Amino acid sequence: MRLPSVAVPLSGERFRVTYSLTAANEAEARQRAVEISFEQTVEFPADLTPEGDILEKIVGHIEEVTQKENAAGWRVVISYTIESAGDETTQFMNVVFGNTSIQKGVRVESFELPPAMAAKRGPRFGRSGLRELLHAPSRPMLCTALKPMGYGAKELARLAGDFARGGIDLIKDDHGLANQSFSTFKERAKACAEAVHEANAITGYHSLYMPHISAPAEQVLERALLAKELGAGALLVCPGLIGWDTMRMLADDDRLNLPIMSHPALIGSFTASADAGISHYTLYGLMPRLFGADASIFPSWGGRFSFSKEECASIVAGSGAPFAEMKSIFPTPGGGMTMDRVAEMQAVYGRDVIFLMGGGLHRHSPDIVANSARFREIVEAMK
Amino acid sequence: MRLPSVAVPLSGERFRVTYSLTAANEAEARQRAVEISFEQTVEFPADLTPEGDILEKIVGHIEEVTQKENAAGWRVVISYTIESAGDETTQFMNVVFGNTSIQKGVRVESFELPPAMAAKRGPRFGRSGLRELLHAPSRPMLCTALKPMGYGAKELARLAGDFARGGIDLIKDDHGLANQSFSTFKERAKACAEAVHEANAITGYHSLYMPHISAPAEQVLERALLAKELGAGALLVCPGLIGWDTMRMLADDDRLNLPIMSHPALIGSFTASADAGISHYTLYGLMPRLFGADASIFPSWGGRFSFSKEECASIVAGSGAPFAEMKSIFPTPGGGMTMDRVAEMQAVYGRDVIFLMGGGLHRHSPDIVANSARFREIVEAMK
Repeated sequence: MRLPSVAVPLSGERFRVTYSLTAANEAEARQRAVEISFEQTVEFPADLTPEGDILEKIVGHIEEVTQKENAAGWRVVISYTIESAGDETTQFMNVVFGNTSIQKGVRVESFELPPAMAAKRGPRFGRSGLRELLHAPSRPMLCTALKPMGYGAKELARLAGDFARGGIDLIKDDHGLANQSFSTFKERAKACAEAVHEANAITGYHSLYMPHISAPAEQVLERALLAKELGAGALLVCPGLIGWDTMRMLADDDRLNLPIMSHPALIGSFTASADAGISHYTLYGLMPRLFGADASIFPSWGGRFSFSKEECASIVAGSGAPFAEMKSIFPTPGGGMTMDRVAEMQAVYGRDVIFLMGGGLHRHSPDIVANSARFREIVEAMK
Repeated sequence: MRLPSVAVPLSGERFRVTYSLTAANEAEARQRAVEISFEQTVEFPADLTPEGDILEKIVGHIEEVTQKENAAGWRVVISYTIESAGDETTQFMNVVFGNTSIQKGVRVESFELPPAMAAKRGPRFGRSGLRELLHAPSRPMLCTALKPMGYGAKELARLAGDFARGGIDLIKDDHGLANQSFSTFKERAKACAEAVHEANAITGYHSLYMPHISAPAEQVLERALLAKELGAGALLVCPGLIGWDTMRMLADDDRLNLPIMSHPALIGSFTASADAGISHYTLYGLMPRLFGADASIFPSWGGRFSFSKEECASIVAGSGAPFAEMKSIFPTPGGGMTMDRVAEMQAVYGRDVIFLMGGGLHRHSPDIVANSARFREIVEAMK
C-alpha cells in the first residue's frame, strides 16, 4: 500500500548528475533513468512511494535523455534536491551513485553543483596556491617518488636529498611506503624532511617533502600532524585506502594547512569498464577537487598503464573546469614517465601540470642529482 | 643504474593473493604476473631494483600460474612478505591491489593470511554473537529498512515500531538516510530506538534498531557513540562512503561494542567487469570480515540487480570460509526481495543468512505489523 504523504521543507535547489546508460532504445533508456531516480533517493517501489513532496521532489527528476552522437548509449541527466545530500560529501556521493554503482551498464560521467552548494571548500591551495609555495609561477612542476619498498629511512633520505639538490619540486613517498618495520613512518618522515630542507638551504630551491599518510582510521590525522611537525611540506593521500572524505577532513584541518596530492591506489576499478563505474573526468578530476586534493595522480597514456590520450585529456579538463567555485588542481600524470617523453606529454598537458617521474629518474646516469637536474632543465626549456 | 642493496629484516611469513588474469598464453600470463609482483611492492623497474632481500623477498613471489579450467584466463597466485603490509589493513589492501586496480584484465579472486596475521580481530560478533543477541539460535534472521528518504523521525519511528511488533530482528535505516534537514540523525535515531524498545517490551522479541552512521570523517565515531547512547542495537555502515578501515575502527572500539552491517553503496563498480576489480567472494565476503562487519548486504539474484545465483553463492562461501581465525559473518541478501521468494532463496542461502526485505514488506496488506509477522512466520516455518 502506498505510504502516507508528508510535507518536506525543501529549498528548490538541485544538483545534477550526468550518467551514461546502455539501452536498446529511448523507451528503455527512459525506463532505466526512472529506476535510477528512485534507486538513488527513496529506494522504494514507485507505486508505494508517498505522493506529494517525496514523489514529486525527493525522487530524482529526469532532466535529459539523449542518444549519444559518436558513441553507443544514452546520456541521462538526473537532478536531486540538495537536501538529499544533507550537506555531507559522503552522502552526496551516496545520492550520486550509491546503489546504482551495483547496476550494470550505467556510468557517472559528471556532476554539477548549484550555487547553494558552492560553499564547499574543495582544494585549500589549488594550482595558484601550490605554484606560490613552490615559487613556480608558470612552468610545469616536477615530482618524484622515494622507493623502493624495503629501503630504510637512511637510504630514502639520501635519495630525497639527491632529488632535492637536482631541483625536483615535490618529493613524495612511494604510495607503498606506510609504517613498515623496515621503514617506520616517523623515522622516514623525519629523515626525508631534513634531507630536503638541507638541500633547499644549499640550492635556494623550494622543494617539498610529501610523506604518504594513509593509515588506520584512528591514526590518519595523528600521522598527518606528525608529518607537519617533522617538516613535511605536503601530504600524499590514497582516498581509495582511507576513504575519500578522510582526505577532505585533512584538507579542511587548519592545523595542517598543507597541500594534498591524491593517489589512485585501489580506485582503478572504477574505470575498468567503459560502461560502468565513474568517468576519468570525474574520478581523477572532479572528485579529488570535491574531496580537497590540490593535485591528482593518474597513469598517463604511453606508460605501464592503459589510459588513452583522450582519457588523460579528460582528466585535465575535470581538474580545471568551472566547478562550484572550487579551485583548479594539478593533473599529475605518472606511471612510467621517462625523460624523452616530456615534450610529447607537454603537448597534451600544457604548463598546468605536475610531471611525476619515478623509475625513469634512475636511468641515464648513476648520478641522481644530475638526472634530476636534467629533468628540470628539460622542463624549464619548454615553451 | 641499479640501486645499492640493503639487508631487510623479514620474518619469512607471507600472505597469498589469487588473481585472475587475461593473457594470450602462458608466457604472457607469467610476464603479467611478474609485472604485478613488482608493481604491488617496489614499483620499480626490475633492472634497477636493489639485489638481495628487496629483489628476492620484498618483490612478490609467483607461486602459481595455471590456466583456468572452465573459464577464459589464468589463475595466478602471488605471495608477499607480511612486513610489506605493515600490520595495517589499509596497507594490506594497497599491497593486494593498489596500483594493479588500474590495470585492465586483472581481478582479485581471494587472499589467504598466514598464522602470523591471524591476530586481526575481524568481526566482533560474527554469526554466533549476533544469533545470541537476537535470541535466534538457528533460524534465518529478518531485516528491513526504514524509508523512504523524505520521511521525518516521527514517520520513520512509527514504521520502526510496526516492524518490531511484527518480529523483524534488525530494523535498519535505509542507507540513504544520513543527517538531512528533514530527518536529522539524532532525532531519527532517538525516536526509532525508542519505538523498537517499546515494541520489544510488548512482544518479548529482541529486535535491534540499526541506524546508518556513514558521516563526514571527523563525525563518524561521534555519530556511532551517539547512536549507542540513544539506544541503537547495531550500526549500518557503508565502507564505500566512509572508507573500509573506518568500519574496522568502529568494530574495534570497545566503547561501541555493537554489531556492524556493511552496505555496498558505491562499491558496486568493483564487480562491474568480469575480468577486473574484485570478486564477489572477496568484496562481499572476505573484505567485510577483514574490516570488522558482522553481516554483509549484497543484492540477491532475482531482484532489481544483476548478480547471478553463482555469484551470490560465492558470497555465502566468502562469508563463512576459514579465514585467519576470523569469525564467520552473515550474508545479507536484499535488493528486491519479496515474500514469495523466501523458499527459493533459502534453498541457496541456507539458515545462516539474514533476509533483507524493504519495499516488499509494504505489499499484500496495509497492515505493516501483519506483513512483518507474516514474513517471520514464513521464515520460522522453513526447515
